[in-house]
Amino acid sequence: MKHSSIFYLTDFGLSDTFAGVMKAVVLGLGHEGAQIDLTHGIAPQDVLAGAMALEDTWPWLPSGSVVVAVVDPGVGTPRRALALHLDGRYVVAPDNGLLTPLLAKDAQVRHIQKGGAIQPDRSATFHGRDVFAPAAALLATRQRKFEDLGPEVNGPVLLELPAPQISPKGRTIILKVLTVDRFGNAVLNHSLRDARSLPLERGEFHCSAGSLGPLRRTYGDVPVGTPVVYWNSAGRLEVAINGGHAAHQLQLGVGATIHFKVSSAR
Amino acid sequence: MKHSSIFYLTDFGLSDTFAGVMKAVVLGLGHEGAQIDLTHGIAPQDVLAGAMALEDTWPWLPSGSVVVAVVDPGVGTPRRALALHLDGRYVVAPDNGLLTPLLAKDAQVRHIQKGGAIQPDRSATFHGRDVFAPAAALLATRQRKFEDLGPEVNGPVLLELPAPQISPKGRTIILKVLTVDRFGNAVLNHSLRDARSLPLERGEFHCSAGSLGPLRRTYGDVPVGTPVVYWNSAGRLEVAINGGHAAHQLQLGVGATIHFKVSSAR
Amino acid sequence: MKHSSIFYLTDFGLSDTFAGVMKAVVLGLGHEGAQIDLTHGIAPQDVLAGAMALEDTWPWLPSGSVVVAVVDPGVGTPRRALALHLDGRYVVAPDNGLLTPLLAKDAQVRHIQKGGAIQPDRSATFHGRDVFAPAAALLATRQRKFEDLGPEVNGPVLLELPAPQISPKGRTIILKVLTVDRFGNAVLNHSLRDARSLPLERGEFHCSAGSLGPLRRTYGDVPVGTPVVYWNSAGRLEVAINGGHAAHQLQLGVGATIHFKVSSAR
Repeated sequence: MKHSSIFYLTDFGLSDTFAGVMKAVVLGLGHEGAQIDLTHGIAPQDVLAGAMALEDTWPWLPSGSVVVAVVDPGVGTPRRALALHLDGRYVVAPDNGLLTPLLAKDAQVRHIQKGGAIQPDRSATFHGRDVFAPAAALLATRQRKFEDLGPEVNGPVLLELPAPQISPKGRTIILKVLTVDRFGNAVLNHSLRDARSLPLERGEFHCSAGSLGPLRRTYGDVPVGTPVVYWNSAGRLEVAINGGHAAHQLQLGVGATIHFKVSSAR
Repeated sequence: MKHSSIFYLTDFGLSDTFAGVMKAVVLGLGHEGAQIDLTHGIAPQDVLAGAMALEDTWPWLPSGSVVVAVVDPGVGTPRRALALHLDGRYVVAPDNGLLTPLLAKDAQVRHIQKGGAIQPDRSATFHGRDVFAPAAALLATRQRKFEDLGPEVNGPVLLELPAPQISPKGRTIILKVLTVDRFGNAVLNHSLRDARSLPLERGEFHCSAGSLGPLRRTYGDVPVGTPVVYWNSAGRLEVAINGGHAAHQLQLGVGATIHFKVSSAR
Repeated sequence: MKHSSIFYLTDFGLSDTFAGVMKAVVLGLGHEGAQIDLTHGIAPQDVLAGAMALEDTWPWLPSGSVVVAVVDPGVGTPRRALALHLDGRYVVAPDNGLLTPLLAKDAQVRHIQKGGAIQPDRSATFHGRDVFAPAAALLATRQRKFEDLGPEVNGPVLLELPAPQISPKGRTIILKVLTVDRFGNAVLNHSLRDARSLPLERGEFHCSAGSLGPLRRTYGDVPVGTPVVYWNSAGRLEVAINGGHAAHQLQLGVGATIHFKVSSAR
């Protein structure tokens, strides 16, 4: 029976050997499937950005996949190591909120404990290598069942996801930039998946640099050089400049504010 | 029968999850071969640099390989999605000139159409995930024949490749820097593969910072700290400083000019 | 019989196609095992940093592994191409000191010679593609035995590894920063593996910006924002700031000095 694929999602970067050593450990445990980098480029210690990336990539992972998700400012403190099972796929991650978007009602969560699943002489500072990669390898090769990784977990740490603010009269919606991608596109704190949908059909987006126009389908809907807001490929609200770099040209760094003014005209 | 290898050549970078998600999609379609990054580091939306990288890596790809080549400023506009077959290897790419160096007389080109090869609910902005990666997976796993991806294409977009300029009397050749590599080496717009060969045997290269000497075999042919011009490992003319960083030290950014002065002495 | 895994450790970066082309060459020679990047992010031409990374990752590589290690300022000069065998694992690398930490008494070293193991028309400037990757593929696929790569080597180039300096009376130990990692942690020139152990139990570390406190177990042992010195996950002495970026905040670039003052109190 074929081994499951292992995916990596970390803030380790690629300048050091952290990512490579985790894969060596997985190979050493007999794994023969694919080992794929989702990314090692999460901003250092940005747990929220990691949680968003995990949520966005989750729908695309084949059945049986195991994700090693490590953005872990608290490594070396007593925070727990978790394993999560949801819809036939698995994640191993620190208990610091990184799993928040997946902690839906059907998710099962286990505390990865000392024992067969982890290196006996684990380091204080590299649990990716010594705890998470080995646990992922044991799951993906079916040397260990999910249920045998450790006891069930109650009360995993939950991240407070920053929600859009709506003015008292409902005329203005205040959004925030959560991340900026390689092309300078600024991703906002609202998604098609959010429970509360916003009245974005009629009105315009504004940032400190000026108007961004109404909600559109894609950047090809505006002339080159023009700002545009649309649902990105992960279903999140995103600001771009067609052919440009929105974050630089509109000063839209992480934390910047976007206002949506609901139009009263009918 | 073993699946073919899939290679990636994009401007997606590695900070986001774009590259990883394409590979997840390929795995989800049952591909079991190697998935290799040629690079995701093409400068954003630099179609010419992408075309050069595709041309330079092509000779090294094993028979049956499928390349996913995406540098796509026009995603979200009606530009076509293409598949090319040349010498037993394949590329899928947008119809924006990226395939120019491979569009030789024996290349067959198909228009990847709506249908089995693409996701039904494809996004407007991520055709790498929704069109190109699935088409590559279907080709590499032989779930679909090249001929069944769509109709033949006439008149694919061709890039104008910037040729060296030669002065009226043939005494001066004007070259341009097209890309700069990791080591600061500046790659020029002339290759051993070009139809027109230049008289570079006798004479010297010059840039605004001074003389670069005659054409040599390798940077080891000059003392440390000295500029040198040679044919690089892809057969392109290249400027380096032995042990240094030519682009910084000689102000050779993309677009900079190099003159070759043909020597009259015999 | 399964093919061995091939690991890459270079200063090639990921912006160019150098790393991808080496893997294409390996696939073209029939290799079917894993190809894993340890890192391509060694600082350009920093042989010492490459040697440290090779030493640190070596214990984690599965039996039979072959490493392609290329940090090679002297490519294009007559320096030799080497293959090393130690403890059932292999490295191919230029003869420039990169192998120094592995050149223990049981290591066998061969000179990779012209012949079947290398491309007949190798370039002057890309031996990663034309010499080292092919040699690794032949070893990993068992198309060639280690002993058949070429003759035994005497006197490979050895790097002088920078040792800590101890003051005449033994009250002060002078350490240097050798590398800085993604998180801004500064790695010093002393390791648990070093022959000479230092009296670090009693005393304090200091840098130009102030005291770094005594040796601790991990950054979680100090409050957020506080500097801390500990043995990192590779067994090297390392300076961090809990939740911060030590290299920036304490001006600890490569080459910076750290003093350890031995305490006289008992």
